[in-house]
Amino acid sequence: MNKLQHTINQIGWSPAGAAERAQARLDSQTKPAGSLGRLEEIARQLAAITGAERLSACRKSIIVMAGDHGVTAEGVSAYPQAVTAQMVLNFLRGGAAINVLARHAGARLVVVDIGVNAEFPPETLPADTSGNVEFLRRKVASGTRNFAREAAMTSDQAVTALTAGIEVVEAEIARGAELIATGDMGIGNTAASSAIVAAMTGLPVAEVTGRGTGVNDAGLAKKIQVISDALKLHGLAKPAGAGRTPAFPTLDVLAKVGGLEIAGLAGVVLGAAAARRPVVLDGFISGAAALVASGLAPDVTKFCFVAHRSVEAGHRAMLETLGLKPIMDLDLRLGEGTGAALAMHLIEAAAKLYNEMATFAEAGVAEKQR
Amino acid sequence: MNKLQHTINQIGWSPAGAAERAQARLDSQTKPAGSLGRLEEIARQLAAITGAERLSACRKSIIVMAGDHGVTAEGVSAYPQAVTAQMVLNFLRGGAAINVLARHAGARLVVVDIGVNAEFPPETLPADTSGNVEFLRRKVASGTRNFAREAAMTSDQAVTALTAGIEVVEAEIARGAELIATGDMGIGNTAASSAIVAAMTGLPVAEVTGRGTGVNDAGLAKKIQVISDALKLHGLAKPAGAGRTPAFPTLDVLAKVGGLEIAGLAGVVLGAAAARRPVVLDGFISGAAALVASGLAPDVTKFCFVAHRSVEAGHRAMLETLGLKPIMDLDLRLGEGTGAALAMHLIEAAAKLYNEMATFAEAGVAEKQR
Repeated sequence: MNKLQHTINQIGWSPAGAAERAQARLDSQTKPAGSLGRLEEIARQLAAITGAERLSACRKSIIVMAGDHGVTAEGVSAYPQAVTAQMVLNFLRGGAAINVLARHAGARLVVVDIGVNAEFPPETLPADTSGNVEFLRRKVASGTRNFAREAAMTSDQAVTALTAGIEVVEAEIARGAELIATGDMGIGNTAASSAIVAAMTGLPVAEVTGRGTGVNDAGLAKKIQVISDALKLHGLAKPAGAGRTPAFPTLDVLAKVGGLEIAGLAGVVLGAAAARRPVVLDGFISGAAALVASGLAPDVTKFCFVAHRSVEAGHRAMLETLGLKPIMDLDLRLGEGTGAALAMHLIEAAAKLYNEMATFAEAGVAEKQR
Repeated sequence: MNKLQHTINQIGWSPAGAAERAQARLDSQTKPAGSLGRLEEIARQLAAITGAERLSACRKSIIVMAGDHGVTAEGVSAYPQAVTAQMVLNFLRGGAAINVLARHAGARLVVVDIGVNAEFPPETLPADTSGNVEFLRRKVASGTRNFAREAAMTSDQAVTALTAGIEVVEAEIARGAELIATGDMGIGNTAASSAIVAAMTGLPVAEVTGRGTGVNDAGLAKKIQVISDALKLHGLAKPAGAGRTPAFPTLDVLAKVGGLEIAGLAGVVLGAAAARRPVVLDGFISGAAALVASGLAPDVTKFCFVAHRSVEAGHRAMLETLGLKPIMDLDLRLGEGTGAALAMHLIEAAAKLYNEMATFAEAGVAEKQR
């Protein structure tokens, strides 16, 4: 628990007027006050997160955590479990959506095996075709156990995965990363994420469970039933008559119905916040990880940007709980960090506008008259 | 009228199955079908626009048309008219928001004086600091006349400005531009744009008129009154009991209450469509230009992307009339092409995903099972 607790203890939000100073600068720049809308909000938040005079989001890392889920045995996903490992290889070959978008964003892509149910012997790995992909072996287990029957992982495994996420992001920050994005790969992980949201918000499972990679109506009904039954099995169902937030211990929720990649991404969020680095959350799985991180250290949400509103049911409720507003709404539901990679461009734009725009005085432009 | 009519005659929408072929490719790629949402729509549209097997949106040009408005004499804007020229100089020095975002997008920035009420003697121009800005002198007049009292321009001036826009975009395409964005600068141009929308849709002026760069309540009331009176003066008010679309001749609306930069941008839209190049519309002023272009050649909308939903009242009605859906919603209301510059990154992302993603077969990834 040492590393995890130490990291949590480091997280604190003390912007000390940075957002106000940033707004004063934004208002001096050659544009009608407030006319850059969300980009001004983003610049203010970046200033408050880092405390820096100049903003920089040029050096970017996308951390994709991959893990398998025992609950796929219940038939809750449209794809077979083997796809997790196949997609990891696709990432390493540079052919997946996140590879294209990481290259487009000019970001490093760090792919972490934190719990895939397959081995990746070095001699079988493809040569890196694009130069910006790194593969890290941080396997905690070969997938979770089936949470419909038993706890997905032990508390020790959950803490180990959280700690791995912290260490991975710390290494990226040590390399100079100024902006971190989260991504996921794990067949079955929307089921685990829906279970986490339901347990942590007390919302009905049916409201926070969607089609994931694309189950049909029967598959969706089954998924809802499996999650509902699992929450009862693990004592994570909201007691009748209880308030909205059941307040089950976060680590307990994570271990019983979570995922190794979700734990790892929660660690990434915690580690970034502890180091005062902005972190861009991708969609539903990253949101579940942020929910776990905020359960451990509520201030982490101040360090987070939400890239986009996912199509996945339950993302809206998740964001309301986190108190965060998505930057884009592109009907994405792919995961891998794809939405986060796209949003990095907008966050970097906000930083550059803040740094580079002329003021009214510098440009000799008249100010508002009425 | 020759060049203009010739361009209009060239515009036709004949996608010939390109969108369907594009969708088949998208569905073969390693992601759940449809999971890239709007990006897949964008890729399909790019394929249909260009008819190309591989999509490319790498070479980008942002065309910013600048013009003044006689109607500023009525006190409809929060800034003095001199700001138009001051901002043109700011563009040439590289200090405006659009400079920052053009550099960030890797786009050329073409600034066109199509109707600024100031001269720009070569010896007074700043040295280009960033290398990607070009200044074009296509002045049709030193601003429009005050449309509250007389027609903003003559029909000849409107046609000349439209033709200038066509020629500017043709030159960019000849240089290799694959993706065109529109931008505007002109104090008073939200008033002209609201007048155009009201005349072309028959909607009440109050519904399609906003605060522009930031007039207060009294300024907004005055702006609405000035536009309403002008529409009556010019015979462009919807007759009582008439249907929603009054069908006034487009060129007449443009000449009587439009703007030179709006005419120029309409020409850019026409020229891009005639050459089968995608064009990214910025906000409210660019939307008014697209409305004019679609009045002259209804098929132009198929070649257009709408970058974002502007804060400006009336943008929603404009987009409904055009039948177009914005890509982003960032509460922007700056103009200059800022929203379009940001959206170019997403459009380029869609093209790259289409070109570069591996298929299930190539990557050895299992397909959907249920």
